[in-house]
Amino acid sequence: MLSGENQKNPVKIGLLGCGTVGSGVVLLLRENGEHIAQRLGRNITIAKVLDKDFEKVKQLGVDPNIITSDFQQILNDPEIEIIVEVMGGIEPARSFILEALRNGKNVVTANKDLIAQSGRELFATAQQFQRDLYFEASVGGGIPVIAALKQSLAANKIESVSGIVNGTTNYILSKMSRDGEDYQFALSEAQRLGYAEADPSSDVGGHDAARKISILASIAFGARVTYSDVFVEGIEKISALDISYGNELGYVLKLLAIAKLDNDEIDVRVHPAFIPSHHPLAAVGEVFNGILIQGNFVGDIMLYGRGAGQRPTASAIVSDVMEVARNIQYGDTGRISCTCYADLKIKAFSDTHSKYYIRLLAQDKPGVLAGIAGAFGRNLVSLASVIQKRNYQEKAEIVLVTHTVREGNIQTALQELIGMDIVAEISNVIRVEGEDGR
Amino acid sequence: MLSGENQKNPVKIGLLGCGTVGSGVVLLLRENGEHIAQRLGRNITIAKVLDKDFEKVKQLGVDPNIITSDFQQILNDPEIEIIVEVMGGIEPARSFILEALRNGKNVVTANKDLIAQSGRELFATAQQFQRDLYFEASVGGGIPVIAALKQSLAANKIESVSGIVNGTTNYILSKMSRDGEDYQFALSEAQRLGYAEADPSSDVGGHDAARKISILASIAFGARVTYSDVFVEGIEKISALDISYGNELGYVLKLLAIAKLDNDEIDVRVHPAFIPSHHPLAAVGEVFNGILIQGNFVGDIMLYGRGAGQRPTASAIVSDVMEVARNIQYGDTGRISCTCYADLKIKAFSDTHSKYYIRLLAQDKPGVLAGIAGAFGRNLVSLASVIQKRNYQEKAEIVLVTHTVREGNIQTALQELIGMDIVAEISNVIRVEGEDGR
Repeated sequence: MLSGENQKNPVKIGLLGCGTVGSGVVLLLRENGEHIAQRLGRNITIAKVLDKDFEKVKQLGVDPNIITSDFQQILNDPEIEIIVEVMGGIEPARSFILEALRNGKNVVTANKDLIAQSGRELFATAQQFQRDLYFEASVGGGIPVIAALKQSLAANKIESVSGIVNGTTNYILSKMSRDGEDYQFALSEAQRLGYAEADPSSDVGGHDAARKISILASIAFGARVTYSDVFVEGIEKISALDISYGNELGYVLKLLAIAKLDNDEIDVRVHPAFIPSHHPLAAVGEVFNGILIQGNFVGDIMLYGRGAGQRPTASAIVSDVMEVARNIQYGDTGRISCTCYADLKIKAFSDTHSKYYIRLLAQDKPGVLAGIAGAFGRNLVSLASVIQKRNYQEKAEIVLVTHTVREGNIQTALQELIGMDIVAEISNVIRVEGEDGR
Repeated sequence: MLSGENQKNPVKIGLLGCGTVGSGVVLLLRENGEHIAQRLGRNITIAKVLDKDFEKVKQLGVDPNIITSDFQQILNDPEIEIIVEVMGGIEPARSFILEALRNGKNVVTANKDLIAQSGRELFATAQQFQRDLYFEASVGGGIPVIAALKQSLAANKIESVSGIVNGTTNYILSKMSRDGEDYQFALSEAQRLGYAEADPSSDVGGHDAARKISILASIAFGARVTYSDVFVEGIEKISALDISYGNELGYVLKLLAIAKLDNDEIDVRVHPAFIPSHHPLAAVGEVFNGILIQGNFVGDIMLYGRGAGQRPTASAIVSDVMEVARNIQYGDTGRISCTCYADLKIKAFSDTHSKYYIRLLAQDKPGVLAGIAGAFGRNLVSLASVIQKRNYQEKAEIVLVTHTVREGNIQTALQELIGMDIVAEISNVIRVEGEDGR
């Protein structure tokens, strides 16, 4: 199906980095090369690979003559039209991408840290030079969530984007929930299986999810949302006991990334949350990601798939390369420029609203429940349920679930409780989300 | 954010049909018009509406001067660049679309019947005149499944596309499952709520789903698959008893549309199927649709949302219009042409493979189970479980589940059973899918 001219004229890419993800791109182009040429009408070939580890790249079967450790060789190769950046980290990735765009090259990247931090500068440069900067692989691996927000759902005013965007923590929480294991044990198991890194803090602390939701929020609301705008709480304090109590109440625990519009302010946060067991995101288990988008016409859309890994990430990158190649062919790179047209404020976290699950230890004597309820009442926190669970260290363990209240009010109520003689310990506080289907 | 020029130069569309879906387009452009203009850089305005019911359209607030019953007025309006066809049915929609493309207009349609039947002719015409023919709304309402297959997952060899693509039958089956109701009662309830039409045969007979899966299969496999290629079986024979027995076995019943590659042949079919209760599609309830795509790099992707309705369908249509408007702006309409490059055969239905749930009535006497098992064994059908459920009309009701077998073999086994004195009735046969996660 390929005309002779197009076979002779492949799309040439420069691959920056050939680690796990870069190797995936090499494998995909090899395994699916013919398929891609049929779909696109042109072959895609890797013209140069930037990597310091020459031997590692050679062992992938890459022609040694195209491996280089000098970015300038790629930047100054006039035949390379698309740069695929899969080095990760901020520098030198940022400088390389900026130089590439200024030199008239288009860029596909999987680098969520960079997009979340330097998105403004990168997209402005792409727009200035009318080049493409695609980044589907930066959020949700192979799940087409960026394309959905930018194009397929573009007619909607997006009301919220939320979901499970970190596979490591979802694996840990799924395992804790399924096997009743505690956090440390489940984390060790995730590390043993390669789902968690030796230093897991970026994942379990919620920072990876915060970068991803800042990217999704920026696109969804047409505003500039950065990592530092996101309230972040990790899963380190979650106990098997909380998960078990939650299950009894009909909840499943997930690390949720949430971005929603509330009176023209953006409520954006990452924290553990109980969601009803019938919620669409409750069925997203193990290392899978699930992203729920709510638009004012489309209603609820959920996208589900593997949010990380060599092959799913390569799928997103090469599909992006195909789109950019079409834009190059038609001379309209930069056709969808930065969509940050709206000037929206980030909602102060103390003004956000949620329901709360609170587990505490109190004196086991008459009047204690009334005293606790009084502290909540004085802070306008209305309780949905109060259950005494067990006696522990001669104290009564009490689990409360509130109605929807303001974050600031729950915090002052908790401060007041901590100061009361009858309360020995606030053991955990976990938000409850999604009972209104949102 | 709009430059003066673009405000003066809106994208003008001609709307063919102003029923439920057409009204949705009118409402969306009114409600989200400013948002769309910010995203796109141009306004979208309806220049003319084709509808015989002048009063109905006027009551929507449409300027009476732009309502017409003469298609030629739209065809010959040089300012109209995009035709939105939401009349439904084959004619005159087919002729109107062909004339529009030949006259240099781009087309967005929600018409699954027409795409499934006349896709070849329509896409060839679009390609010949280098115009866009977009049809996201034809499958899955607002769920971006066409865009995912055509663009976001384009780097993958797609192995299968399957799912729940008909909301009416999913509502009926969900209700039967939840409330233990029989088919007729659940259907009446669906009709009362407006989820099923007075003549429900297209939905409950599986024909609507067959049209949709033929469209998805064509795109997924780059081949030409039409409605007549699809094996179709509806849900009319499903009883509450089967659903209940299936639940006991850990299954949920769904009307599945399945298209998968099997040794370079396309296995494409629509039928009721039991799937494991932990399968991602099992959680797709009520009127929702869920589509599972398996690519050789991306793995499993599921897209979930409302598969029909005025507002979700309008979301897909107007998002398509925005894409087409960008193509017009950059002079590259027709940039993604027909992707039917592969010449793949449709697998003979008797050669497809599945597991089967079989419910039958047999004589209640010694040796009967051995006799039944013998008939299966002679036809190379291996049984996974055999359970005697109850006595009914002095017969024994037996439920069997097979291992994976060839369709042709199960049919000859069933013929043999029907001819045996010990078998009074084959009460129902339902395929079991998804136990391998596929």
